[in-house]
Formats: sequence, structure tokens, C-alpha cells
Amino acid sequence: MDVMEAARRAEAEGRHIIHMEVGQPGTPAPEGARAALAQAMEGDAMGYTVALGLPALRERIAGLYKSWYGLDISPERVVVTSGSSGAFILAFTALFDAGDRVGIGMPGYPSYRQILKALDLVPVEIETKAENRLQPVAQDLEGHDLQGLMVASPANPSGTMLDHAALAELIEAARAQGASFISDEIYHGIEYDSKAVSALEISDEVYVINSFSKYFSMTGWRVGWMVVPQDHVRTVERLAQNLFICPPHASQVAALAAMGCDEELQANLEVYKVNRQLMIDGLPKAGFDRIAPPDGAFYVYADVSHLTEDSRAFAAEILEKAGVAVTPGLDFDPKRGHGTIRFSYARATEDIREGLRRLAEFMAAR
Amino acid sequence: MDVMEAARRAEAEGRHIIHMEVGQPGTPAPEGARAALAQAMEGDAMGYTVALGLPALRERIAGLYKSWYGLDISPERVVVTSGSSGAFILAFTALFDAGDRVGIGMPGYPSYRQILKALDLVPVEIETKAENRLQPVAQDLEGHDLQGLMVASPANPSGTMLDHAALAELIEAARAQGASFISDEIYHGIEYDSKAVSALEISDEVYVINSFSKYFSMTGWRVGWMVVPQDHVRTVERLAQNLFICPPHASQVAALAAMGCDEELQANLEVYKVNRQLMIDGLPKAGFDRIAPPDGAFYVYADVSHLTEDSRAFAAEILEKAGVAVTPGLDFDPKRGHGTIRFSYARATEDIREGLRRLAEFMAAR
Repeated sequence: MDVMEAARRAEAEGRHIIHMEVGQPGTPAPEGARAALAQAMEGDAMGYTVALGLPALRERIAGLYKSWYGLDISPERVVVTSGSSGAFILAFTALFDAGDRVGIGMPGYPSYRQILKALDLVPVEIETKAENRLQPVAQDLEGHDLQGLMVASPANPSGTMLDHAALAELIEAARAQGASFISDEIYHGIEYDSKAVSALEISDEVYVINSFSKYFSMTGWRVGWMVVPQDHVRTVERLAQNLFICPPHASQVAALAAMGCDEELQANLEVYKVNRQLMIDGLPKAGFDRIAPPDGAFYVYADVSHLTEDSRAFAAEILEKAGVAVTPGLDFDPKRGHGTIRFSYARATEDIREGLRRLAEFMAAR
Repeated sequence: MDVMEAARRAEAEGRHIIHMEVGQPGTPAPEGARAALAQAMEGDAMGYTVALGLPALRERIAGLYKSWYGLDISPERVVVTSGSSGAFILAFTALFDAGDRVGIGMPGYPSYRQILKALDLVPVEIETKAENRLQPVAQDLEGHDLQGLMVASPANPSGTMLDHAALAELIEAARAQGASFISDEIYHGIEYDSKAVSALEISDEVYVINSFSKYFSMTGWRVGWMVVPQDHVRTVERLAQNLFICPPHASQVAALAAMGCDEELQANLEVYKVNRQLMIDGLPKAGFDRIAPPDGAFYVYADVSHLTEDSRAFAAEILEKAGVAVTPGLDFDPKRGHGTIRFSYARATEDIREGLRRLAEFMAAR
């Protein structure tokens, strides 16, 4: 956030900044989604929906599990949420009591630990290893006495994925110590060489969280979903009713229509693919050579510990001298992030080209 | 919720039901709000907004305190939220730790206690008295050892308001026992004989929660706001960033435009005024004579303890025999609600007339 604020100030001063710090697509919601909403607004009062979301949307999401993973998921198990943010709150309040310990991989999405703390839960930071491509593995859980484990694949900031075997081992290891398993799958659909594996391909006794923000390009609409075990539906419904009443009705209408906009969404994905290749080629040439090719999402996490001991200062220097906003690793990993930064390639390809050019020039002059 | 489900089933069977159980306007968002969103969707990617909400919306909300109450409130203190639901979660996590005791008046909005419980806080139910028009008074707080107190004026289910003196006494009594004060003002704007008093007219050291759901007729859009003390803004901003990222962008755009739609909103209010008078006249004639005229909102809370000892069964009987859905008091007051029911008059006047006709017929035949 400090980076974004600094970038905003620089732009206010008239500078041109390339945004490699952003965590969201530059594209709007698909045209078909916006058209559907414009039409719905004409004829529908759009009051509260039922707490679990529009039945047609729940049905359509269930169908996504068939088309993406070949799974038969009952629409009853699908809970439409106010973004994945709402899903985290519902999952954590449904599964845990004050003081419960929930494991999260480091580096990871910074809000995980802040949400857990805000709900009086204890985030247990599990340090991942480079040889495990910065994903937790089953043996990392030993001795942590967890009531819950949350993983993300593809992960933010690394873009790395857990394959079927690694995910299955983690689910089993969590089960063995009585920990509930939560799988953050919000970057599913944005994947490159192979398909992301859903935790639902392995077990029905998990919470899976997804969102319309990334693949469906609808961040600002705040609509996401969870799939929960059948016998948790009623508990989650009561919580959702009391905590949120319902997800935003307009966003649900738009989301439903977005699910029929494959052509536009696949075109967005093609842009990410081109951008990713530019990054994989260009970053090492610029001097950022300690990177692992991301499996999914739109991030590259770079080890810059040979270049700096202070990623915040380094990010500030890159913004100041190169006019490129990047995110310091400390946001994702308070212990080791002083030696890492995250590049996002979610924006237009011309921006990525220009950003890489500036980064190369900056590093050459350094 | 059981009532709504039963009403839905009855309608699915082909019956015509008058909805006096609903907690929302039957009207859509103002036309100007929908037009503004339709236009914004054409040109704006509508990604995440900043966590505290669109600056223009915060400014406009601050201006509302000038026009409604003559108060100068800094826009910095205004936090746009994902409905009042989001505001409750933010207020409770900002102000309280697990185990803290938060007083709420009984009868009251049922989700208060459920949200508090979900966040591992302790709802302390304060029984209000009929002679205090079902609002808590300062002396009711004695001996409760509260860390927080939440009041609502106009209240749900009673529609009664706290006047300036009563509200000031409650704020002082809370302060004296070190309890944070939260004022739920989501029905402000829907008031009849006199203006509702905001807690901000009395103190800046309070959290005030409001919403676009009721007066602005935007329930399904999930957008509301809080005004917090200046020195709480940064804490609330961090929580909002982590817990919600931002309120729905589209809803914020619509809400901003809704604030310029006075004519349509005042026309809605005229309908409530007519409906209220029909209820005040018609309910006693029908046999529901133990009511207090509501000061605001769109509810009448009736004492039916001379007619039933089981408000759930009574509501079911009214639905079955009269085809009118009403809400049993048990939803609002687990201890005393067996002898009360809530009528809503938020819908069209012709529905209210027909509902009253059916209720009179039902009571005459009973």
C-alpha cells in the first residue's frame, strides 16, 4: 500500500509510472457482464438476495467445477460471497474459535494474517523453502499444533502451484493433526503450462475459496464464492445471513453473465501469457535472474538479496529512478522479504515492455 | 427467515401473500443512481477503490451531516463500508477483543448478537421497558460491566427513537463505565413527526453506522458508512483494507448519485407516511391495539400477548389463514418475543390496505 501511495504521489507530480505493483487486472468486467447488469437494473428492484447468493449463480458455479476439473459438485455446497474477503471471514468464523492456530505459508498474501488477527485467531507462519518453490509441504506442518491450514495455489506472490500429489499430502497432513483445510484458489483460470489442481479433486472435506476478481476480471465488484462440505452449509448460511445479509446483488448479476464471456476472458489470458514470457525473458536480462517461472497468476517473485538488504528501500529506489512501481517482499514475508520483490504483469503488454526497458536501464546504471 | 421461507413456499403453491415481514423497501435504487452506474460502466474499469471508499462519496456523506444535522464532519472520518454489515464487523473488530461484553437493547435487530458471537464477543442483552418505548435508558446499564454499547434509533423492530436527552444520557453512561459507544442510525431519513438525533450531535467519540439500504432504497447494493473518531481512522483503514479490500465499486458509484436524487427519495418517504397512518389507524381496528406509533423506520411492533403465548405459531397462523406474512417477536427478543409480532409497512400502499383488510377479517373470524 505504501508503494501504491508513493506511485500515486509521483503521478500527481506529473511523472509517468509503470504499475508492476498492482494486484488486479487492468481490464474491466467482461462486456457481457456489464450489459446484463445494465439490463437487470431496468426491470428489477435488486433488493437483498438470499444469503447464499442467487440460485442461478450457485448452479452455474457448480457447473464450472465440471468444466474445469470434471467434478460433480452440488450447487447446494456453493456459497456466493462478498469477494474472497467475505469468504475468508465466513470460513474463519465457521471453522475456528478465538485462539485457534491457523497455518499460512510464508511468503503469502499479507491480509491472511491480518484477517486472522482481527478475528482473534493466531496466524502460524510456515516458512516455505525455495526448493519447494515457496509452497508449504506436508513435513512443514510437523509440531505446529494447528486447528487450520490455508494454502494458495497458484500462490501470491510466487505464482507457483501445488501439484496433485503435494496438495493431497498437505490435505492428509492437516487431517492427521485435526486441522481444517482451506484452499485459496482465486487465481485458478490464470495458469500457463498446466491446469491448477482444486482441493476438491482430492477431498470433499475442505473449504475452497474462489473469486470473480482475477480470471473473471471483476476485482471492484466484490463477489467470490466458497465450496464447503455439505454438512457445513447450514452453519455457513446462518453466518452469511447475519454477517453479510447477502453479497452485492448487482455484482452477482454481472458475475453470472461473466461466466458466459469466455472469448473475452481468454483474450485477457492471452495477454497474461505474452506478458509472462516477456517477464521470464526480460527480467534476467535486466539483472533480476533469481526467479522461478510462475505456474499461474500474474506475478514474478524475485530474490534480490544479492542486490539489497532492504527491499522497501530498493522498491523506493526503483520507483524513484526507473519510474516502475514494484512491491517489496516484506509485505509478503516479514522475516525474509527484505531480500525479495514482487513484479506484477497484469497490465497491458506495452506497459510490460516499457517497464522491462526501464528496469534494464536502471540496473545497468546501478 | 423462517417466515420468509414459508411465505415463499406459499407463493410457489400459487397463493397471493402480502409481505409485512420484509425489512427492505420495495422500491429500486433511484433512477439517477442506476443511470450513473450504467454510464460509469462504459468508461471505467471499476477495479478496487481505496479501502475507505471513493473520496467523492466520503465528501458527499460528510456533507449530509451538514444538511441533516447542521454538523461539520471531516470527510476523513467517513468510512464507506460493504453495507452496514461491513460497518458492524469493522466497528467490532476495531473496538473489541475476544470476550469483551457489548450491550444491545432487547428487542433489537437479531444479527447484532449473532455477529458479536461470531466474532467471539459477548452480547449482553439489555431488556428495555415499554414505558421507555422499548429503548434502553442510562440506568439500564448499571452493573453490566460493558466494554461496548450499541443502540439503534429509530430502532428495529419498534421504530421508536431516542431523543437528544436520552441519547446524551446513554453516551455519558457508557463513557462512565469505559464502554465504547456505537450508534446504529441506518433508519435515519425515514422519520415522521420529528428528526432523528445523531450521536454525532452529542459527541465525536462515538462510532456512527449508517447505510444506503433504507432511506436511499439500495439494500441489495451492500453499501453503507461509518463515521469514526479522528484518531481511529488509521486503525479502521487498516482493518478495512485487510478484511474487505474495498466496498463494491459499482455500488459506491450508484450511492454517490443516489445522494442527488432527493425528489424520488422524498416520494418514497411520502408512501411510508401514508402507509404508517394506515397502520396506526387500521391495526387497532383489526384488533392489534397494543402498539406505539413508530417515530421512524417502517415497522410497527405489536404486543399480542393477550392473543397468543407463541408468536411463531401465531405468525404461521396469520400466514396460513390471512395470507399475510409478519415476523414473530422471538426473532428480536428471545425472552419476551413470544408475545409480540412485527409488521412492516415498507411496501406499496395498495399492499398495506389489502394486508390490513385481511388482518381485520382474520381477527374477526378468530
